[in-house]
Amino acid sequence: MTYHAPTRELHFVLDKVVGYNAVAATDRFAEAGSETVAAILEEAGRITSDVIVPSRRESDLSPAVLENGVVRSAPGLKAAYDAVAEGGWIGLSASPEYGGMGLPQALNVAVSEMLSSGSLSLQVKALLSQGQIEALEHHASEALKALYLPKLNAGEWSGTMNLTEPQAGSDVGALTTQATDNGDGTWAVTGQKIYISWGDSDLVDNVCHLVLARTPGAPAGTKGISLFMVPKFLPNADGTLGAPNTLRVLSLEHKMGLHGSPTAVMSFEGAKGWLVGPELGGMAAMFTMMNNARLGVGAQGIGVAEAAYQQAAAYARDRRQGKVGGLGTIIEHPDVKRMLGQMKAEIFAARSIALACAVAIDMAAATGSARWKARAAFLTPIAKSYGTDVGWRVADMGVQIHGGMGYVEETGAAQLLRDVRITQIYEGTNGIQAIDLVGRKLADGGEAAFQLIDEIEGTAENARESQPALAEAVWGAAETLRETTEWMLEADMDARLGGASDYLAAFARMLGGWFHLKGALEDPACAPLAALYATRILPLADTHAGIARRGGEDLAQFTSDDFA
Amino acid sequence: MTYHAPTRELHFVLDKVVGYNAVAATDRFAEAGSETVAAILEEAGRITSDVIVPSRRESDLSPAVLENGVVRSAPGLKAAYDAVAEGGWIGLSASPEYGGMGLPQALNVAVSEMLSSGSLSLQVKALLSQGQIEALEHHASEALKALYLPKLNAGEWSGTMNLTEPQAGSDVGALTTQATDNGDGTWAVTGQKIYISWGDSDLVDNVCHLVLARTPGAPAGTKGISLFMVPKFLPNADGTLGAPNTLRVLSLEHKMGLHGSPTAVMSFEGAKGWLVGPELGGMAAMFTMMNNARLGVGAQGIGVAEAAYQQAAAYARDRRQGKVGGLGTIIEHPDVKRMLGQMKAEIFAARSIALACAVAIDMAAATGSARWKARAAFLTPIAKSYGTDVGWRVADMGVQIHGGMGYVEETGAAQLLRDVRITQIYEGTNGIQAIDLVGRKLADGGEAAFQLIDEIEGTAENARESQPALAEAVWGAAETLRETTEWMLEADMDARLGGASDYLAAFARMLGGWFHLKGALEDPACAPLAALYATRILPLADTHAGIARRGGEDLAQFTSDDFA
Repeated sequence: MTYHAPTRELHFVLDKVVGYNAVAATDRFAEAGSETVAAILEEAGRITSDVIVPSRRESDLSPAVLENGVVRSAPGLKAAYDAVAEGGWIGLSASPEYGGMGLPQALNVAVSEMLSSGSLSLQVKALLSQGQIEALEHHASEALKALYLPKLNAGEWSGTMNLTEPQAGSDVGALTTQATDNGDGTWAVTGQKIYISWGDSDLVDNVCHLVLARTPGAPAGTKGISLFMVPKFLPNADGTLGAPNTLRVLSLEHKMGLHGSPTAVMSFEGAKGWLVGPELGGMAAMFTMMNNARLGVGAQGIGVAEAAYQQAAAYARDRRQGKVGGLGTIIEHPDVKRMLGQMKAEIFAARSIALACAVAIDMAAATGSARWKARAAFLTPIAKSYGTDVGWRVADMGVQIHGGMGYVEETGAAQLLRDVRITQIYEGTNGIQAIDLVGRKLADGGEAAFQLIDEIEGTAENARESQPALAEAVWGAAETLRETTEWMLEADMDARLGGASDYLAAFARMLGGWFHLKGALEDPACAPLAALYATRILPLADTHAGIARRGGEDLAQFTSDDFA
Repeated sequence: MTYHAPTRELHFVLDKVVGYNAVAATDRFAEAGSETVAAILEEAGRITSDVIVPSRRESDLSPAVLENGVVRSAPGLKAAYDAVAEGGWIGLSASPEYGGMGLPQALNVAVSEMLSSGSLSLQVKALLSQGQIEALEHHASEALKALYLPKLNAGEWSGTMNLTEPQAGSDVGALTTQATDNGDGTWAVTGQKIYISWGDSDLVDNVCHLVLARTPGAPAGTKGISLFMVPKFLPNADGTLGAPNTLRVLSLEHKMGLHGSPTAVMSFEGAKGWLVGPELGGMAAMFTMMNNARLGVGAQGIGVAEAAYQQAAAYARDRRQGKVGGLGTIIEHPDVKRMLGQMKAEIFAARSIALACAVAIDMAAATGSARWKARAAFLTPIAKSYGTDVGWRVADMGVQIHGGMGYVEETGAAQLLRDVRITQIYEGTNGIQAIDLVGRKLADGGEAAFQLIDEIEGTAENARESQPALAEAVWGAAETLRETTEWMLEADMDARLGGASDYLAAFARMLGGWFHLKGALEDPACAPLAALYATRILPLADTHAGIARRGGEDLAQFTSDDFA
């Protein structure tokens, strides 16, 4: 299949919809003006089309395997990974002090979307390194930074995130991996971790594991957790590699998709590690890593959606089939058009949400503004959930448009669907994101939410003359979300949790409506798609908001036995 | 995994929700009283649990393969198939004149659901034989019936349906396979067919292909199509097998799921065939086969949903994980309860719709009533689409509840999701079902639709005192569907088609609300689940109906280039 990088769409959203210009106007990102943006998008699109997309199917057909204790990747992945590493894409937003490019997250998210269109298996690897880089920048000692960051930024080494243990999935506080002090500034880490993406890799020289563990006498739960850097090979001070560490891949999972990305069960057997951040400060460091990764996972969903959309649209334009009144291509069928329109409209919405979140992160970083920081925090779970839900829905419609061909693996539509399914689960399931939204992210009394809603209503008010129908629909959705947010703030925690997923779904649809309206105001050519969104997708904001406001009383009636 | 046959639920829906008693009260089905029903459900549940479920995973791990021109199935499938065949389940609703049991479709649908919970790959095979049996009963000569039906009913031979050709997917009229008269009462059939489920089989002695083909001089399109029986081995008059026919399996598809069911590309090379029905009468015979199969496919979706629900509920009851205020099982999380509740409520709705459709078929067969016939025809596309959509949604939530475990194939949750995906595509994609609903099935001026709506409002009126909230919700949905149906009848065809899928989605939700209300009226223990449905699923009837009424104008604005 072919892939056309959506550089025009990304430019439009950045420039006209999410206010990227404000980022480029800061001192911190002064070098990230329109020429840089154009060059970055162009080049990332080119390597995606030329090098990464061609590796996608092979990595599905030849899953990573464990041979003699090390992982062997599908042959085509090495060239694709090298293109990502050598292009400097991994360190795109990392600090220039250690070899990063220091560019805004907004650009990184746009690039991540494209790379994810190319190969989700590969993008997982880049994303984990990026999360590790950010965690080290914020929490590691100077010595660790100087040793690890240049290698990670260059993609010579890669990073992993070791959180999950068999008895502790979403519940990180239940982990039992132990770290004991070696007395020489290092620690001995012992325990088993599961679901470690790229837990070993033949694409890089060293694999750097960030491992959550308990130190002796640490309190129970999340307060007793520390973070350690535990490399596969022990590096010398000059960055050359020394002896292998005492850690192993025990096995790889047989997964529904994402076959190119080896998912390992890791065993740390007194492995030598270095503390990252203070002892018992593991959760803070982990959240740095996770927040970056959550937005990145949202971008993954969007990237797969874009690839699925392009493939389905090409098929529908090409496939001849009966229609009322003669033989045409299936794209002429209203129901196929409806699906393609919904796919395109939801991608625009999800992309705008993710880039708006990235802009907020960049503005917070550039200005230190608490308001931007709060907006970034509020949008992160929405960007993750909605981006990955859109990835799933769009890839699913992509299969459906292909008909029987979609169920046959040869087409590639099924692989996109199988691959993207994990994004709704990892880095915190979408249910966990919803809980985060109605819990932690509404703990400000709704300030971040209401600021967004005020801004949306402002846009709608100003659009009443030029785009009356759209403006009315968006204003109505904003009012609904205002009431629903007020309801949430007054509800007890069980009621909030019962409505959490629907609240997130409603908020995301409203945001999507806002961004479509902004797009239509900037360019009338965007109005038809915005109208389709307002007609066929935005009504779900009301529906989900209504369900969210029912609370959790109906759920509380059910006991475990009712589901036996 | 374990499977508990939902015999109690099936009894309840049959007896209290969809009026099965009326079927048992007819002369034709006098033998299908409560003792028979109990025995049938009990035994079908038993073989599903004991013999079929254990074959499911093996058939996924060892897909059917083509070896030396013949298909070899996964080892465990033979025992499972024999249990189905020897139990007489294939001929459950077939005419006793040729070895069938002559029982109602309502029982057949209930059994099909259970067998589908066990193994979708296997149930596909049974379903195709059943479709063939029905087509032969209605259209074949006495000689063909006498020769083929006893073998098909006994499961010694199996049936296939050969419609699709590479250039003709949903557009059957475009097919080019040729049949020429041999002058001895047989025909020579030549052409290639694709997507032939169980196109060859090592589980039976003979494979009987029903093949759509054109005869010399036949008009273009669907009017020029005839149906032929083309067996793998040419049978002698006594039913013993003679020479192999000139047909071959060219290849098998590599599919996303349903690995146990070989999907063949078939080549007919002057193969000997017998006309079924009159020359040029192929479409009528095909529709007999398809209508049966469409309801059966709906039951497949429900069966997979039930299996996925049971597995997810068991996992959620068992899996310990952090919760606010201590460690519990994840079933205590409101968001997990929400998912399980939605799964259970949608299964109840879809099961009721499918069984109501089957009851209408049975009543039409027993009484000859045009009204029952019209109801069966109207409900068939809804039962197919909604049943398979519920299969997909429930299996998807099943994966989500498992978290990372759901993405790992070992659990089996992912297989259910991959398997069930085809049901939304085959036997007419769900988009085709929607077109059928707003086209052919509203061609009666909406009579069948309005009769259902009247009946639903009658139930709601009578329930206003005992179940006021539920009654109000169902009555409101019925009014919405009444207006939407009126809108559809006045709309031009493009507008209808643009709203077709949403109209079907809305109608299905309303029907689900009705059946939940009926259940709650019969047994107050059903009221909480009915309330959950009314609160969290029925609102989508309004949403989808509203979208359906927007028509297709927004879609008509988009050209092929807008999706380039």
